[in-house]
Amino acid sequence: MRNRIERLFEYIAKEKKNIDCVLVSRSTFPDINFFYFSDASGGLFDGSFLLLYPDGSSKLFTSTMEQEAAEKSKGDFEIYVFSSRDERIKLLEEHIKGNNLGLSFSSITYFEVEKLKETYKGNLVDITKEINFTRAIKDRKEIENIKKASEITSKTFGEVPDMLSDGLTEKELSFKIEFQLRKNGAEALSYDTIAAFGANSSLPHYESSDCTLKNGDFVLLDFAGRYNKYCSDMTRTFFYRKANQEQKKIYETVLEAQMLGIDELKPGAIAKDIHNSVSKYIDDTEFKGRFIHSLGHGIGLETHDTLGLSPISDYMIEENMVFTIEPGIYIPEFGGVRIEDTLVVKKGKPEILTTFTKDLLII
Amino acid sequence: MRNRIERLFEYIAKEKKNIDCVLVSRSTFPDINFFYFSDASGGLFDGSFLLLYPDGSSKLFTSTMEQEAAEKSKGDFEIYVFSSRDERIKLLEEHIKGNNLGLSFSSITYFEVEKLKETYKGNLVDITKEINFTRAIKDRKEIENIKKASEITSKTFGEVPDMLSDGLTEKELSFKIEFQLRKNGAEALSYDTIAAFGANSSLPHYESSDCTLKNGDFVLLDFAGRYNKYCSDMTRTFFYRKANQEQKKIYETVLEAQMLGIDELKPGAIAKDIHNSVSKYIDDTEFKGRFIHSLGHGIGLETHDTLGLSPISDYMIEENMVFTIEPGIYIPEFGGVRIEDTLVVKKGKPEILTTFTKDLLII
Repeated sequence: MRNRIERLFEYIAKEKKNIDCVLVSRSTFPDINFFYFSDASGGLFDGSFLLLYPDGSSKLFTSTMEQEAAEKSKGDFEIYVFSSRDERIKLLEEHIKGNNLGLSFSSITYFEVEKLKETYKGNLVDITKEINFTRAIKDRKEIENIKKASEITSKTFGEVPDMLSDGLTEKELSFKIEFQLRKNGAEALSYDTIAAFGANSSLPHYESSDCTLKNGDFVLLDFAGRYNKYCSDMTRTFFYRKANQEQKKIYETVLEAQMLGIDELKPGAIAKDIHNSVSKYIDDTEFKGRFIHSLGHGIGLETHDTLGLSPISDYMIEENMVFTIEPGIYIPEFGGVRIEDTLVVKKGKPEILTTFTKDLLII
Repeated sequence: MRNRIERLFEYIAKEKKNIDCVLVSRSTFPDINFFYFSDASGGLFDGSFLLLYPDGSSKLFTSTMEQEAAEKSKGDFEIYVFSSRDERIKLLEEHIKGNNLGLSFSSITYFEVEKLKETYKGNLVDITKEINFTRAIKDRKEIENIKKASEITSKTFGEVPDMLSDGLTEKELSFKIEFQLRKNGAEALSYDTIAAFGANSSLPHYESSDCTLKNGDFVLLDFAGRYNKYCSDMTRTFFYRKANQEQKKIYETVLEAQMLGIDELKPGAIAKDIHNSVSKYIDDTEFKGRFIHSLGHGIGLETHDTLGLSPISDYMIEENMVFTIEPGIYIPEFGGVRIEDTLVVKKGKPEILTTFTKDLLII
C-alpha cells in the first residue's frame, strides 16, 4: 500500500498543505479509507485506526480481537495492539507525529474528532479532497477487480431474458438474478438489486416489491456483483412483450444521451461539462426536466466511490479513473428508462467494462 | 413514527437536557437513525435530513430525486423538497427551532457539523445516548420482524448438515447457505456470512476462503437473514465427522457460558455484570483469556444495533430490548467455538428467537 500513501502525500503537497501525519480511523462503518490504505481483511477492525506518514510508511492500531486478522492481512504496516480505550488513546498520542494532522472530515464522526481534540492539541487539516483524488485513480489491481466484477454482471444480464415470464414478481426476479450473480462468481452484491416493472421504473432508487410482470411493462434492472471487494454498476431497461412509441422514444433518447456521455469521458475534460452536456441533450427533447440525477459517479471499493459526474463536479478527468455513465428519463406514473455502464477512462475512448447489448430489447 | 419521536423526547427530558429540535441528517450511509425516525423507504435519501420536534411531529427534507419515494413512504412527516445545496441550507435555517439543537455526534460527520455551524449559531447538544436508548427498546412491529428473520435463519441452520461434504470449500458453503436464506424468505443477509473450517474458526470475524472441509474440522457458521430491514444474528459450531476431547471440552464450556449469559439477561440486571459473569466463568476454566470479545450486542435495524453487552456497558437491561448472547473460545492455530442466539428480554426468562439446537453435533 506504500504506493497509495505516497500518492496521497503527493496530492497533499500539490495542494500546498503541510501535513506531518494522517489519521484514518475506522470510526464509521464501513470506513472504506481504512481498508483502502491498509488492505486489511478478515476482520471488522472496529475501533482500529491507521497513521500514515509522509515517507510512505504506515502503522495499524487494532484491538486484541483483531490482532490475528491484522497479522494475516497483506498490508505493509507495523501493527500495534490495544486492549482498552485508555491504551488506544495512549498509542495514538505516542505515534501521532508533528503539529499538523490530516483527516478526512467527511469520513470521521464529530464525536471522534471532539475526543481527539482532548488529547491532540495540534492543527486538524481536512484532506477529504486529497484522499478522494488518490482513490479516484485506480491502480492495475483495482481495475482488474472492477473488470472481473463487470464481466460477472454482464454475463448475468445476458441470462435475464430467460428469467422473464408473465406474473413474475420483482422480488422473484431479484432472487433469480442474485443467485446467478453469485453462481457466476460474484462474492456479494455491489448494492441492493433494483428490479422495477412498469411505472415503478420511474423511481431511480426503487425497492423491489411483489408487483407482477405484465405485457408492455418497462423492466428496469440495476444490479451488479462484487469481486475481491470491488464493485461494478450496470443498468439495462427492457420491454416485456411489446413497447409503444412513447416507450421507444424514451429509450432511444436515453441511449443517445448515454453514448454522448461516453464520447465526452476523456482525459482533460471537466467532469461537470460532461454532465451538463448530457443534461442539455435531454432538456432539448420533449423530455425536458425528466433527467433528475447526476450523470454518474466513481466506482471502486464503493458503488458510489469518490468523485461524481454532476453539475458541481469541478475537476479534470484523468486516465484510469473509473466511472459510471447512467442517464435516465423518468415519467411519474408512466415509467422510466436508465442505461448505465461502468467505464475506465483511457487516453482515447473509454473502455466499457459492462458489455451486454444496449439495443432496445423486447423480450 | 410519532411514538418513536415522543419516546426520544422522554429520554431527553429524563436526562434534563433542554432541546428545542433534533436534526437527523443522512450524512453517513446508511444512517440508520434517519430510517428509524422516518420509516422512509424506496430511496437512498442522499443529503436528506429530518427535523424532530418535542410535540412528536417531524419534517423530512429531501432532494427532487427522492421526492416521489418520500411521498410513497409510510412516514408521518411533512415533506420539503430542495433542488440545490443552497436551497437545502435555506430550508434547514427556516425550520430549525430554538437555540438548542440535538444531534447524535456519533452518526454525523465532522464536516457536516462544521458546515452547520456556519449557519446555525445555537447550542449543539449530543443526544447519541438518548437515541440509542430509544432504539434499544423495540416496539411490537420491530420484534415481529426480528422474530421472522430469526425463524428464517434457524430454518436455514437446520439445512446445513445436508450441505456438508468432504472437500467442500468455505466459499461454496457460504453460497449454499445464502441461497437457502433467500429461498426461505430473507430479503438480504444481515451481514457477510462467516463459514470457518478448522483452525480458521479461531478468528472471530473471519472471511470465507477456498479452504476445504476435512475430517475433524470445527465448522463455525455465523450467518443470518434480514426481514423487512430487520436483522437476526446466529452462530453455531459443528464438528465434521469427528471431534476430539479438546474440541468437545471447548464446546461444552462455551455452551455452559452461553446458558449462564441467557439466565442472567433479565430486566433490572446491569449489562456489564452479565458480560463479566460469563467472562469470569470462562476465565475460571483452562481456557482463561480465550474469550476475546464482548458477550453480545443489541440487534435491530443494524446487526450491531445500539447498546452492547461488554465490560463497559453501564446501563440497566429493560423489557423488549433485543440482544445477542455469543460467548466464544478461540485458540490460535487450533480453532474456536462460538454459540450465539438472538433474544428478546422478557419479564422472566428471555425469549430465544434463534431456535436451532445447541447440542454438540458431529455431522
